[in-house]
Amino acid sequence: MSVESMETYAIAPISGGVTAPGGFRAAGLACGIKAGGKPDLAIVAADRAVSAAAIFTTNQAKAAPILVSRDHLDASGGKARLIVSNSGCANACTGSQGLADAKEMATLSAGIVGCSPSEVLVASTGVIGVNLKMDALRAGIPQAISALAADGHARAAQAIMTTDPFPKSYAVEVTTRAGRFRVGGMAKGSGMIEPRMATMLGYLTTDAAVEPALLRRALVDACQYTFNAITVDGESSTNDCVFAMASGVSGVTIDETHYAALFEGLRAVALDLSLGIVRGGEGASKLVAMTVSGAQSQDEAWTAARTIANSPLVKTAIHGGDPNWGRLIAAAGRSGVTFSLDSARVRIGSLVLFSDGQPHDELAPRAAEYLRGKDIDIEVNVGAGGTGRATVYTCDLSAEYVKINAEYRT
Amino acid sequence: MSVESMETYAIAPISGGVTAPGGFRAAGLACGIKAGGKPDLAIVAADRAVSAAAIFTTNQAKAAPILVSRDHLDASGGKARLIVSNSGCANACTGSQGLADAKEMATLSAGIVGCSPSEVLVASTGVIGVNLKMDALRAGIPQAISALAADGHARAAQAIMTTDPFPKSYAVEVTTRAGRFRVGGMAKGSGMIEPRMATMLGYLTTDAAVEPALLRRALVDACQYTFNAITVDGESSTNDCVFAMASGVSGVTIDETHYAALFEGLRAVALDLSLGIVRGGEGASKLVAMTVSGAQSQDEAWTAARTIANSPLVKTAIHGGDPNWGRLIAAAGRSGVTFSLDSARVRIGSLVLFSDGQPHDELAPRAAEYLRGKDIDIEVNVGAGGTGRATVYTCDLSAEYVKINAEYRT
Repeated sequence: MSVESMETYAIAPISGGVTAPGGFRAAGLACGIKAGGKPDLAIVAADRAVSAAAIFTTNQAKAAPILVSRDHLDASGGKARLIVSNSGCANACTGSQGLADAKEMATLSAGIVGCSPSEVLVASTGVIGVNLKMDALRAGIPQAISALAADGHARAAQAIMTTDPFPKSYAVEVTTRAGRFRVGGMAKGSGMIEPRMATMLGYLTTDAAVEPALLRRALVDACQYTFNAITVDGESSTNDCVFAMASGVSGVTIDETHYAALFEGLRAVALDLSLGIVRGGEGASKLVAMTVSGAQSQDEAWTAARTIANSPLVKTAIHGGDPNWGRLIAAAGRSGVTFSLDSARVRIGSLVLFSDGQPHDELAPRAAEYLRGKDIDIEVNVGAGGTGRATVYTCDLSAEYVKINAEYRT
Repeated sequence: MSVESMETYAIAPISGGVTAPGGFRAAGLACGIKAGGKPDLAIVAADRAVSAAAIFTTNQAKAAPILVSRDHLDASGGKARLIVSNSGCANACTGSQGLADAKEMATLSAGIVGCSPSEVLVASTGVIGVNLKMDALRAGIPQAISALAADGHARAAQAIMTTDPFPKSYAVEVTTRAGRFRVGGMAKGSGMIEPRMATMLGYLTTDAAVEPALLRRALVDACQYTFNAITVDGESSTNDCVFAMASGVSGVTIDETHYAALFEGLRAVALDLSLGIVRGGEGASKLVAMTVSGAQSQDEAWTAARTIANSPLVKTAIHGGDPNWGRLIAAAGRSGVTFSLDSARVRIGSLVLFSDGQPHDELAPRAAEYLRGKDIDIEVNVGAGGTGRATVYTCDLSAEYVKINAEYRT
């Protein structure tokens, strides 16, 4: 989907997060899965069963809630009423007990609101290999459903956090010729993965009216440039998922004509949330937009951008404020894409440090100055002469990342 | 090449490193490329042009010495007299000047010993994007050639170091029915890559008599289980290469019958050297043998083992002594190989922490105890029911790694 659509529309940020669009309520509370009374149960509810779509982790070690939510969305034909999530326990690698527990989360919730269990999506995040505290959920879910509120977005965004340093919540209003609709969302994620790390979860809501198939297409398109374009540490978890629900209460119906407006609305919210995940990445101090250009194809651009964005040497150099363009070239050169050293080019901020096979290392001090900032823009042209271009968002790699991930259970 | 060869032979460690085999001399000295008078020029010399083979980096951003050595080996038909190496400057991304400098290193050396320039292999390691100090080399190379000595192995191994915490040098004697021959070697490497990081270089010598083609086959086979089976940080440099030279002075001729003895000799030396690189990996405190079994194919076993061995969450968990088997499963699950969670199995030391889809987390405290050691043995059966099996050697990821790589030029 290109930004240069024929349709004109305007997108403006608004408050209200996941409950900004009409027809949604949310709740978040502590039910006792996490120690110390921290919020660990979040529910996002539509007022009735609405269009829903989801993207699930491609990891083959899928957690029980992933399997259950996938089956439910299939069974309901792309409709959902509730998303019920817990933090503090991933319910992954937990065998048949884990599957039974994830199903009970849905059945219990469905019984209270009076919908089919297949209209309930479930998600879990936290420690792998530990069973859910079902007593806590059996007590907590009815409480959370009673607490559902049109202004519940902040409490819900809190309750899905694990190692996140701050909650991720955002919403926009999209003005089109056919009227206005809203898109809201919340997300969690810090490391890409568990124990006590954050798997990535994303929740998007809209009050546009849109059929499940078109909602799914817009979700997939929007995620390509947002949730699927970020990396903290190159790990993909057993529990990653992004959900979207469309209530329709705005009265604006999205069809092919207005598709771009929905796509851009979802993309705007998903981009803010996913950049929040990177900014709050474990140990992160900088947000880096890593663009690869001049690639032979779009796929090659993504491959090279991901390789560079995940390179520990690139990420440590950025952490140290070192304009070490040789590491960018070396990572591009090993990424497996078509690459020409003689035509490659490296730009850090506005400074070109390598071009036409020649170093311009005299600019290194100015580039070091630029790297002291918090928002870093880097472009590597791989010199293949093509139009392939992709941007992956990443963060620096710090000693703090190692500490966070080494010091669990020791 | 299988270890279960029909031929019987014995392999015993000996001293002498790269000069242990007859027919080789070596030298190492400080010529002024590195600051502070640190050794930075190493030469390994055969007494005459002998069989030689090499494996070069697959990185497409190849450094000038890689291009020159590859051309020379082609032109000489697999013969070499000298390997001339400097540390402190990678001569990579240096354009036409870099190529001219690498050629001059060879021509200058050839002129002094009286051989063809194509019989000289060159290698450089150190900072990318900076030109070689040719004045230092023009003065240093004649000095180093005069200093060549049959006991020069330790000085040469010192002079190729960059961030290496210790030199890597090893040799064995192989006893076969046809007689005895020796294999020696030295290597450097700590991070996989530059600026002031260690690119990986390996040098193997033998006094067996072997044709270039067979030497190359044995080198490729031996490297598959050694230099190509290690990872510190998943980076592959612009300058990586491994050289082998065979002087023939032992009088033992290697043909198909004795191939296994040569392979095992090269493998024994290459394994010691490459494990030394991992033990001395930047910030490393533990050596980890990461085995994947039960894979559908050998290729899939390598892919999964590499993915797990490069996972920052796995490596930080091992650093922290956390028997976090969920991270091993998650990395295997995202590696793209055939994977079955229900049949997967994780072993840390002798403790099975996950099998048949069920966690055995009660063994975690004993596994944590095991992880306090320096040598860690881990096996992940990916549950595909195949016979594919591979071992990749890696180290833990520490805050020290980040410090080493963030604090250059800042």
